[in-house]
Amino acid sequence: MSDAGDLIHPVILCGGSGTRLWPASRESFPKQFIPLAEPGRSSFQATAARLSDPATFARPAVITANDARFLVAEQLAQGGVEADILLEPCRRDSAPAVAVAALHAASHDPQALVLILPADHAIGDDAAFGEAARAARAGARAGHIMTLGIAPTHPSTAYGYIQPGSPLPGAAGGSGARTVARFLEKPDATRAAGLIGEGALWNGGYFLFRADVMLDELETHAPAVLAAARAALATAVRDLDFVRLGVEAFGQAPQISIDYAVMERTERAGVLPVGFPWSDIGTWGALWDIAARDGDGNALRGRVALRGTRNSLVHSTGEILTTVVGLDDVVVVTTDDAVLVASREAAGEVKGLVEGLRRRGEPEADAHRLMYRPWGSYQRIDIGARFQVKRITVKPGGRLSLQKHYHRAEHWVVVRGTAEVTVDGVVRLVHENEAAYLPIGCVHRLVNPGKIPLELIEVQVGSYTGEDDIIRIEDVYGREGG
Amino acid sequence: MSDAGDLIHPVILCGGSGTRLWPASRESFPKQFIPLAEPGRSSFQATAARLSDPATFARPAVITANDARFLVAEQLAQGGVEADILLEPCRRDSAPAVAVAALHAASHDPQALVLILPADHAIGDDAAFGEAARAARAGARAGHIMTLGIAPTHPSTAYGYIQPGSPLPGAAGGSGARTVARFLEKPDATRAAGLIGEGALWNGGYFLFRADVMLDELETHAPAVLAAARAALATAVRDLDFVRLGVEAFGQAPQISIDYAVMERTERAGVLPVGFPWSDIGTWGALWDIAARDGDGNALRGRVALRGTRNSLVHSTGEILTTVVGLDDVVVVTTDDAVLVASREAAGEVKGLVEGLRRRGEPEADAHRLMYRPWGSYQRIDIGARFQVKRITVKPGGRLSLQKHYHRAEHWVVVRGTAEVTVDGVVRLVHENEAAYLPIGCVHRLVNPGKIPLELIEVQVGSYTGEDDIIRIEDVYGREGG
Repeated sequence: MSDAGDLIHPVILCGGSGTRLWPASRESFPKQFIPLAEPGRSSFQATAARLSDPATFARPAVITANDARFLVAEQLAQGGVEADILLEPCRRDSAPAVAVAALHAASHDPQALVLILPADHAIGDDAAFGEAARAARAGARAGHIMTLGIAPTHPSTAYGYIQPGSPLPGAAGGSGARTVARFLEKPDATRAAGLIGEGALWNGGYFLFRADVMLDELETHAPAVLAAARAALATAVRDLDFVRLGVEAFGQAPQISIDYAVMERTERAGVLPVGFPWSDIGTWGALWDIAARDGDGNALRGRVALRGTRNSLVHSTGEILTTVVGLDDVVVVTTDDAVLVASREAAGEVKGLVEGLRRRGEPEADAHRLMYRPWGSYQRIDIGARFQVKRITVKPGGRLSLQKHYHRAEHWVVVRGTAEVTVDGVVRLVHENEAAYLPIGCVHRLVNPGKIPLELIEVQVGSYTGEDDIIRIEDVYGREGG
Repeated sequence: MSDAGDLIHPVILCGGSGTRLWPASRESFPKQFIPLAEPGRSSFQATAARLSDPATFARPAVITANDARFLVAEQLAQGGVEADILLEPCRRDSAPAVAVAALHAASHDPQALVLILPADHAIGDDAAFGEAARAARAGARAGHIMTLGIAPTHPSTAYGYIQPGSPLPGAAGGSGARTVARFLEKPDATRAAGLIGEGALWNGGYFLFRADVMLDELETHAPAVLAAARAALATAVRDLDFVRLGVEAFGQAPQISIDYAVMERTERAGVLPVGFPWSDIGTWGALWDIAARDGDGNALRGRVALRGTRNSLVHSTGEILTTVVGLDDVVVVTTDDAVLVASREAAGEVKGLVEGLRRRGEPEADAHRLMYRPWGSYQRIDIGARFQVKRITVKPGGRLSLQKHYHRAEHWVVVRGTAEVTVDGVVRLVHENEAAYLPIGCVHRLVNPGKIPLELIEVQVGSYTGEDDIIRIEDVYGREGG
């Protein structure tokens, strides 16, 4: 073996918006950013942390939705991870993202080894994952598009399967890598059991390849995807720490997965069977499957009390005290503004539930009460006919836009830290237990000039308190006016 | 019949603190005050409204716990009902309350007809209830302590039973009134079915009697109860619209129910069988039994969305969106700070759950976030390490106590109405969208001098924001300092 110097360039695909884990996961805060499988760390953070061995992995790249950029930056910073962040202006499934990943890596080294990783999976053994990535390298170096084929633990109907073929030419002898006989879409339960009997593996969505190989295959099987990705990178704009892909060009890309676009068509696919514990955390039931459970089979999180309840997942993610009495095999998830109660078996129907909520116009279908912003976050804590109250947290150094409102005045009471408040050109410091008044129409800005987070209570009073009554005059984070 | 002029003096026992309907019902806001069986009206209000026929019922009296007095007054006022309100300084079960009721009525007319009513029951037919009360009058006038015996609808193990005896001497011929052969405590299911086969009736806790008869029986069977009640009335203090029973005297009363103290011992008991729909709303399951249900058998209230769910009770009492997927026969109750999920069958175990929460010191076991006060109400909307935010509502004319705090400053922002704010002797008006600052230690008072409710947001900042840091200097509602 002579591939010790072959660094792998990981690219984390972080553009998903899973509603199947509602109400924790929402359009405005999708599941990969939420601490689900472990307390205190999201699956995106766990994925990034899995790439920390500098002898195996180069600096990672993250491809994410434009709306999620500050969340990505914040969660990377929390984990002390540096990465290139490429922003998709719209959703186009995985093929365009993989094309961008291959082009991005090829710009430095046409034969760079690229590893595509989903951001929203749980893996039970980081060391085994690293070993698998290293073991798949030889096949990729030899010109194969390597997938990780996960050993099935049950006849799942939620995953695609891979049927391995003959030993892979050029791959490391002992790795067990094989050619791919076939990719199979999600089967029914009987077929799934049969597939497992035949030695089929789960398709986890991990791909390791040489950039030039993937570009060749895209050229052959999905030229429109490749052309759009190329144009999107050529027209990309660097903005703060982000690379914004060209809006118009990326929008031209067909919406298609890399499985359909390339993997099911290429003759260069290889698969490395792996045995580490894995889940795509596709439903609350799947999370219960992999979660740490107590002696009654319960997976609990937050302020929870149970009585006569077994084999259930109960997550209280906010302040709410959540209790369950005399029920088995249920999922109960409470947030500050929404509650889900489901049988574990029916947890897959949550997606349909959320679609129904969206049709009814329920704001909780997509929006969280806690909203992340580049400068920090805010949370509505009360609302009435002519007022709204928010708790606003500004990071040290954070600067809100210079702005004004047509329909509301605001009262700010600082409850922690120090604020620098600008009102119509006059700048002053407002300390803990001091207040500032912002009359309707005044041009104002809020900055945290200090070393600790600034927290303040904002009381808005006026005939309209919607988010769209923010007229931005200047913004260090490059957000559009209005 | 010559009893047309015999007005019945109703006395509503309103001292309960049912935890079995947690989290809606709590020590600080017990179930009789919550709209449960009907939206918008509590069982206490429904009970008072049931007594509105002036040809049958005299002005009612209410016996309640001291802590619930403003809630009682407020709910009576909402229903336009005037009543005497007698305050128990501590809980002593029903016998002392019945003794007070009999003494209170006897002070005007020793032979007054007194009807004892629980405040926390649902009755499906108010006219039938009035007819039953009138039909029971003859027996009471003849010297019997009449109970209403409710026709059982199922072999309940949650109720006591009454075995009727021979036709009641002196009662109206056609009424069906009987002597009582036996009072029976809550039976097991087999025994309950047997009792129903033998013609036994449920003991609903309604008693109609001549004041002098009940006083005689108390003298015979429970002299200590009667003595304590007599002393408590003799040392009572009239305070605003309330009659405060003497603290020391009432505290001497044995804690015993009227069933044990008198009914199971007296030879003067009579029972009138009645057929109206009735429930003591003892559990969420009992509420589902009597609730209006949709085609899927679901009883729903508030912001609720269901999918594949049947025969369930789902109440969302706050702002929270509550969803249930793929479950039958469950109870889900959400409030702004606590959630209960239970099987309908196990709903009776909620009492045990709440006891466990109390032992764990969970504040939600007993306290609601929305707290009623004589001047209005307040609700915590946010809390942090060194701050707390409340929404305060003051009724027109409401006056908070003159007070000060040792550990916190307060910022008030008026979001509706007008406040009269006194700070260290200086009085000023604060209008909508204006703010007032109350430094630590200042002596202050808040009054609503206007014609519409005053709403304000209070931001407390300081090292301690507990309710016990309120030093009352003067209070129009007669509340104690500290």
